[in-house]
Amino acid sequence: MPQRKSGKFIIGVDLGGTNIVVGALSEDGSREYAMRSEPTRADQGADAVVDRMVRMIDTVIAETSAAGGGKREACLGVGVGAPGPLDRENGIVLTTPNLGWTNFPLRQVIGDRAGLQATLDNDANCATFGEWWLGAARGAKNVVGMTIGTGIGGGLILDGRLYHGSSDVAGEIGHTTIDVTGRRCKCGNYGCLEAYASGPSIAERAREAAVGENDSLLYQLVDGDLTKLTAATVYEAAQRGDDVARDVVRETARFLGTGLANLLNVFNPDVVVIAGGVTQAGDSLFEPLKREVRRRAFAAAVNACRIVPGTLPGTAGVVGAVATFKQQQLGAV
Amino acid sequence: MPQRKSGKFIIGVDLGGTNIVVGALSEDGSREYAMRSEPTRADQGADAVVDRMVRMIDTVIAETSAAGGGKREACLGVGVGAPGPLDRENGIVLTTPNLGWTNFPLRQVIGDRAGLQATLDNDANCATFGEWWLGAARGAKNVVGMTIGTGIGGGLILDGRLYHGSSDVAGEIGHTTIDVTGRRCKCGNYGCLEAYASGPSIAERAREAAVGENDSLLYQLVDGDLTKLTAATVYEAAQRGDDVARDVVRETARFLGTGLANLLNVFNPDVVVIAGGVTQAGDSLFEPLKREVRRRAFAAAVNACRIVPGTLPGTAGVVGAVATFKQQQLGAV
Repeated sequence: MPQRKSGKFIIGVDLGGTNIVVGALSEDGSREYAMRSEPTRADQGADAVVDRMVRMIDTVIAETSAAGGGKREACLGVGVGAPGPLDRENGIVLTTPNLGWTNFPLRQVIGDRAGLQATLDNDANCATFGEWWLGAARGAKNVVGMTIGTGIGGGLILDGRLYHGSSDVAGEIGHTTIDVTGRRCKCGNYGCLEAYASGPSIAERAREAAVGENDSLLYQLVDGDLTKLTAATVYEAAQRGDDVARDVVRETARFLGTGLANLLNVFNPDVVVIAGGVTQAGDSLFEPLKREVRRRAFAAAVNACRIVPGTLPGTAGVVGAVATFKQQQLGAV
Repeated sequence: MPQRKSGKFIIGVDLGGTNIVVGALSEDGSREYAMRSEPTRADQGADAVVDRMVRMIDTVIAETSAAGGGKREACLGVGVGAPGPLDRENGIVLTTPNLGWTNFPLRQVIGDRAGLQATLDNDANCATFGEWWLGAARGAKNVVGMTIGTGIGGGLILDGRLYHGSSDVAGEIGHTTIDVTGRRCKCGNYGCLEAYASGPSIAERAREAAVGENDSLLYQLVDGDLTKLTAATVYEAAQRGDDVARDVVRETARFLGTGLANLLNVFNPDVVVIAGGVTQAGDSLFEPLKREVRRRAFAAAVNACRIVPGTLPGTAGVVGAVATFKQQQLGAV
C-alpha cells in the first residue's frame, strides 16, 4: 500500500472501567490503524493500567508504521479519553469510581512514558466528538451525544467545538432529574435519568416487573436467577415477544425520551447520537423513544433534530480522542 | 451636561404580553436614556401595538437628543426583543400566544416605520444578555438566565455569545420535565418546570394547599376568594409567617432547584441569573433553592456557579435588545 504524502498519524486512547481501546488515525482521519481492545483490570492498580496503556500505544505505533501509516517520528501525539471528573487544564483525573483513582496526573504520565505530546478529555466528550468527526453526526453544528452503558454519559458540541462548561462538568445528562420524587441515584440525587435507563437500572426495573410474572421469558433466560438479569437479557426477551420485557423496554424509551426532550428544548441540537449497549434494542427502543420526544418537546426543536444511533460502536472514543488532540494541539479538526 | 465625544446611541425595545418597555443606551452602555413603559394592549391588534412601539421609539430618540445623548442621526438603530418562537434570520415572529400574532415580520415593520436599522431576538434571550452586559452576570463566561413570570423563559450565553440552537428554540428551560408523570403544562407536555413554578402555577398550588386550611392568611388576603390568589399574595402570606404559604414557597424552591440542578449538570455555567416577579420572595426563596441545587447537582458544578437575582429589573430586556443589536450589527458588544 503506497504511503500517503503526509504519513502523519495520531494515537487515540479510550480508557474505560472495563476495557482500554487504542488505535491510530491518519491526521486527516481518512485511515484507521491497529485498533485493539484489552481489559482494563483496574483492580491491579493505576501503575499496571498505565503499563498496559503504554504497551498498547507502542504496539499501535509499530503496527501503524508497518502498515505504511507512517514512521514512528510521524506520530504527532496521543489523545486520551478517560472517565471524569477531570481537571482538563492540568490533565488530571480527579476521581473515577470505576477505576478507583484520585488526582491522577494521567496526561503527564502517558506523555512521559510514551514519549509523546498528550491531551486528556472526558470519555463521553470524546465519544461524541468522534461521532461528530467521522460518524453519525458528521457535519452537524450542534450535537448532543449520549452513551448508555453502566452509566449514562453525555457530550455537547456547539458550532463544531466540544463544550466543557465552566469547570469541565458540562454534559452530565445522565444526572438530570426527570422525576423530582424519584429513585435514588448513585450520584446521591433522586430521580436521575441514569437511575432509570442505564444498563443496570434497566435490569433492576425488569427484576421488579418480573415479580409474580413467573411465565416470563426473563426467568428462563437466566435459569430462574433474576440477579443475573442484564439489559441485554431484557432486550432479548423483548425481541422474542415477552410482554414483561417489552413493557420494560417501552418504559425505558419513555424515560430516555423525557430526558432527550429536555435537551431538545434547552439545547436545540441538529443531531442527537445515542451509543452504547442500549442501541442493541434497535427500533423497539428508538421508535417509542422518538415518539416520546415528539410528544414532549417543541415542534420547532423536534423538526430540527435527527435522533440516531452511533455509527462507530467501540471506536468512537478513540476517534474522538484523536479529534480532541487535533483541536487542542493543532488548532482544528 | 457635556455631550460625549461619540454621542452615538442605540434604542432597545422589550415587547411583552403586558407591557412595552423602550429606552436608549449610549453605544458603550455607560448611559441610559428616556426609559419608559406602556401597556401593550395586544387586544387592539398588531397595527395598534406597532404604532405604540414606533411612537415610543420616536419619543425616546427626541428625549435622548434633548438630554445630550446625541442628535437623531446619532441613533445607530433599534434592537427589539419579542416573545418567541421567532424566525430570527428573517426577523419574523412565528407565533405568540400572548400577542395573538402569527408570522409577523416585526423586524422589517419596525425598521421601516422607525426609519432605523433593526434587529430581532427572543425576549428571554435579551433579558439574559442584558444581565450579562450590564447586570448581575457581567463578565461571566457561561450564563443561564431564567425569567419567572406568567411563564418561565430562559436564555443561554456561551463564551460571551447568545446561544440560539439549531432553530432558535434553545433555552426553553421552563419546558423541561422535572416529573415524568407530572402536571399537564400549557405547552402540551406533562411535568414541565413551568407547570410548577411560574407565577400562575405557584398560585394554583397555593389554592390546592389551602383546601381545608381555613385559618390560613391566604384566605384573608383575597377576601376569601382563592381565585384571586397570585404568586405575590403567596409571598406576602409567607413573609407574614403563614404556614401554608411557607410550604408553597419551599416547594417552589424545590421545583426551581431541581430544574436549575439539571442545568448545572448539563451546562455547568458560572452564573445563573434569576429574574421576574418571583425574586420578590427574596431569601425565603433563594436560600432553599440554593440548598436544593447543592443537594442535587455535582459539587464541581455547584462550586463553579453563583445563583443570583437579576440587577436590572424591568430594564434587562431593553439593555439586552441593545446588546443584541450591537452583536448582530456591529460585531461585538
